[in-house]
Amino acid sequence: MAVTFELTHICKQSGARCGILHTSSGDIPTPVFMPVGTAATVKTLEPDEIKEVSEGLILANTYHLWLQPGTDIIERHGGTKSFMNWDGALLTDSGGFQVFSLSSIRKIREEGVVFRHHLSGAPLEMSPEDSIHIQNILGSDIIMSFDECPPFDAGYDYLKASVERTIRWAERGKKAHQKSDSQALFGIVQGGPYPDLRRHCLDELIKLDFPGYAIGGLSIGESKAEMKAVLEMMATVMPTEKPRYLMGVGDPFDLINGVMHGIDMFDCVLPTRIARHGSAMTSEGKIVVKNKRYAEDLTPLDPACDCKVCRQYTRSYLRHLFKSEEILGLRLLSYHNLYFLKRLMHQIREAILADRMGDFFKEMIEKAKPIVGY
Amino acid sequence: MAVTFELTHICKQSGARCGILHTSSGDIPTPVFMPVGTAATVKTLEPDEIKEVSEGLILANTYHLWLQPGTDIIERHGGTKSFMNWDGALLTDSGGFQVFSLSSIRKIREEGVVFRHHLSGAPLEMSPEDSIHIQNILGSDIIMSFDECPPFDAGYDYLKASVERTIRWAERGKKAHQKSDSQALFGIVQGGPYPDLRRHCLDELIKLDFPGYAIGGLSIGESKAEMKAVLEMMATVMPTEKPRYLMGVGDPFDLINGVMHGIDMFDCVLPTRIARHGSAMTSEGKIVVKNKRYAEDLTPLDPACDCKVCRQYTRSYLRHLFKSEEILGLRLLSYHNLYFLKRLMHQIREAILADRMGDFFKEMIEKAKPIVGY
Repeated sequence: MAVTFELTHICKQSGARCGILHTSSGDIPTPVFMPVGTAATVKTLEPDEIKEVSEGLILANTYHLWLQPGTDIIERHGGTKSFMNWDGALLTDSGGFQVFSLSSIRKIREEGVVFRHHLSGAPLEMSPEDSIHIQNILGSDIIMSFDECPPFDAGYDYLKASVERTIRWAERGKKAHQKSDSQALFGIVQGGPYPDLRRHCLDELIKLDFPGYAIGGLSIGESKAEMKAVLEMMATVMPTEKPRYLMGVGDPFDLINGVMHGIDMFDCVLPTRIARHGSAMTSEGKIVVKNKRYAEDLTPLDPACDCKVCRQYTRSYLRHLFKSEEILGLRLLSYHNLYFLKRLMHQIREAILADRMGDFFKEMIEKAKPIVGY
Repeated sequence: MAVTFELTHICKQSGARCGILHTSSGDIPTPVFMPVGTAATVKTLEPDEIKEVSEGLILANTYHLWLQPGTDIIERHGGTKSFMNWDGALLTDSGGFQVFSLSSIRKIREEGVVFRHHLSGAPLEMSPEDSIHIQNILGSDIIMSFDECPPFDAGYDYLKASVERTIRWAERGKKAHQKSDSQALFGIVQGGPYPDLRRHCLDELIKLDFPGYAIGGLSIGESKAEMKAVLEMMATVMPTEKPRYLMGVGDPFDLINGVMHGIDMFDCVLPTRIARHGSAMTSEGKIVVKNKRYAEDLTPLDPACDCKVCRQYTRSYLRHLFKSEEILGLRLLSYHNLYFLKRLMHQIREAILADRMGDFFKEMIEKAKPIVGY
C-alpha cells in the first residue's frame, strides 16, 4: 500500500481520532492541517520553512500544475516533489474543484468536462482518466478522485444526478490509476446537504474500497450549521479504519469542529491568503496587522506563540512592512499563520490523547468569538 | 572611535586594497558590497538570510525610514537594527539622494531643502542637522553627510556652487553629530565630472577629518568612461588610511572597476531590483529567468554558484515561479543575486591578497561582455 492509516486513539470524551498516515516520505500525525502549495510553492515560503510550519504533508493543485508548467516539465523533474524541492509528503487534488470554481464557461458531459482556461479562455477538457493520469505524473503520495463539486444549494435533483456521475467517475478513475503501489487514491463524497445522497455516495465509494475518503462540497458558501449537519451525519457512517479528509477547511473553529466529528485531514488556502492581506491568526483572535493601533505596539504578533516571527519581530515592525508594501510582511505572516494552525492541531492531538477533546472544544467555544470568522 | 578601518593589503599588481572595517557589530572585510534594505528590510529576505548573502554590513535609507515608520517608532525599538532584528552592522545614507531623486518639486536653500513627499505631495523639509539627528536616532554604525546630489551634467557653475554648499552642510552636520562615539560620520565628495571641484570638495572634507569618505554623484546616468575618469582622478588623492565608499554602484563590472581604483565599499539596489524583475546575475552573464528558453532547463541558475538556490532549484522551476507570479521567485532570485555579488567580492579580495587583482581584472574584462550591463 502506498499510504496506510493507523488509528492510534479515539477520545473517550468526544470520539475525535488520533492516527498516523504512514507515507514513503514520512509518518504524518493526524488530525493534520495541510498547507496549500497551489503552484508547487506554499506561497512565499521555502521548503525548509514549510517543514517548520507543517507536519510534512502539503497539498498542490493539479489544475494549476497541469496548465503551468505542464506535466511534461514536472515529469522531467521526476515529479512535483523534486520539482519544488520538497522531501515531505504531498497530496494533489483532482482538479475537479478548480474546473468548477475557476472556469465560468463549462459543459459537463458523462465523458468529462469541457471548459475554458480561467485566464486565457482557451478551450480545455478534463476527464476522470485525465485527472488520474496527470496526478500519476505529478507523483503525489495521495491523489484524489475526479468529482463534480456543484453548489451546495444546487437542489436535490441536480445533486442526485451529479452524485451518480461522481460515483461513475470515481470508478473510472480507480481503473485508470496506474500507480496504486506508490500513490493512494482517495474517494470524494458529494451530495450537498442531503443525507441520503451523501450516504449513497459513500456506500458506493466504499464498494470501490478506497484507502481514504474525503468529504467534498463543504466550505463553499453554506452556513456553519449546514456544514455541521453534514459532518454530524457523516461521522456516524464513514469507515473507522480509513482516513477522513474534510476538503477546503482552515478556519480554526471549523478545524476544531471537524475534529470533533472524526475528521483526520484538512487543507485550506485561508492561512496564507489572509496573511497576504495582512491578517494574522492569534490566540487572541484575528489581527489586522496594518491597523494604526499596532503602529507603536512593541509586543509580538501573538504573545502565546513561539514561532520565529513572534520571537523576533514586533507588531509595529510587521505593520511597517505592510504599510511599506514590503514582501517580507507577506512572508512573515504566512509563516506565522501556518505555524498557528500547526500548533492548534498539535494541541488538538494532545487533547484527544488525553481524552479531553470535549473539554478542549468547550474551552475553545467559550473564547470562540475571537477565533471564529477568519 | 565608532568604526575604524584597518588597511591590510595593497595589491602590488593594481593598487586595489584589502582592509577591515571594525564595527561594534563585527568586522567587515573590504572591499565589500552592502545589500540595500531601504525600509529596514532587504527586500524579501529575513536577517538570517541577509547574513548568508552579505558580509554583515547593510544599508538602510534615512529618507524612507524618516517618513515611515518615523523616527519615534524606531527610537522606541532602540534603533533600526533592533527594529528589523538585524544584529550585523548598518550604514544609513543621509536622505539627500532621495530628496533630490524622488521628489520632483524641491527648493534648495542654504538652510536645507524644502520639498514634497514623493507619494503624498505633503510639504517636507530637511536640513543637514535634521539628517544627522535622524541618523543619530536610526542608530546605524556608519552615517552619511547630508549632501546635494545634482545631475552629472548640471554644468560647472552650478556644480561649483553646489559643492561649496555641500562642504558647508558637511561641516554643519559634523557639528550636529551627537554620537561620534558610536556612529562614524562619513563625508561625501561631489563635483560631477570636474577634477578641480572634486579635489576641492575632498580637500575641504579632509580638513574636517571624517573617518571615511564617499564618492557621490556617480552611477546617476553618466557614461562608464565618465565614471572611470572620476574614479581614476579620485584614486590618487583620497586618503589612504580611510575607507573609500563608492555610492550606488552594484553592476559586477563597475564593482571590479571600482576596486581597481582603490574603492573599499559599495552599495546598490541593483541585485534585488533586477531579481524582482526576473533577472539573475550568473557567471555566464545576465539571465532573464522568465524566458521560454529556460522552460525545460533542469540546470541550476548558475552552475558555478554554490548558493542554496543554485543547489536546490532548477532554472525550469524558477521560471515556473515567475510565470505563475509567485513571490518565492522574487525571493530566490534576490537571495542568489546578493550571494553572487558576495562571492564576487570574495574572489576580488582573494585576488588582491594574492597580488593578482590586475590579472583578475583582465580575466573579467575578457569575459566582460556577458557581465556588463546588468
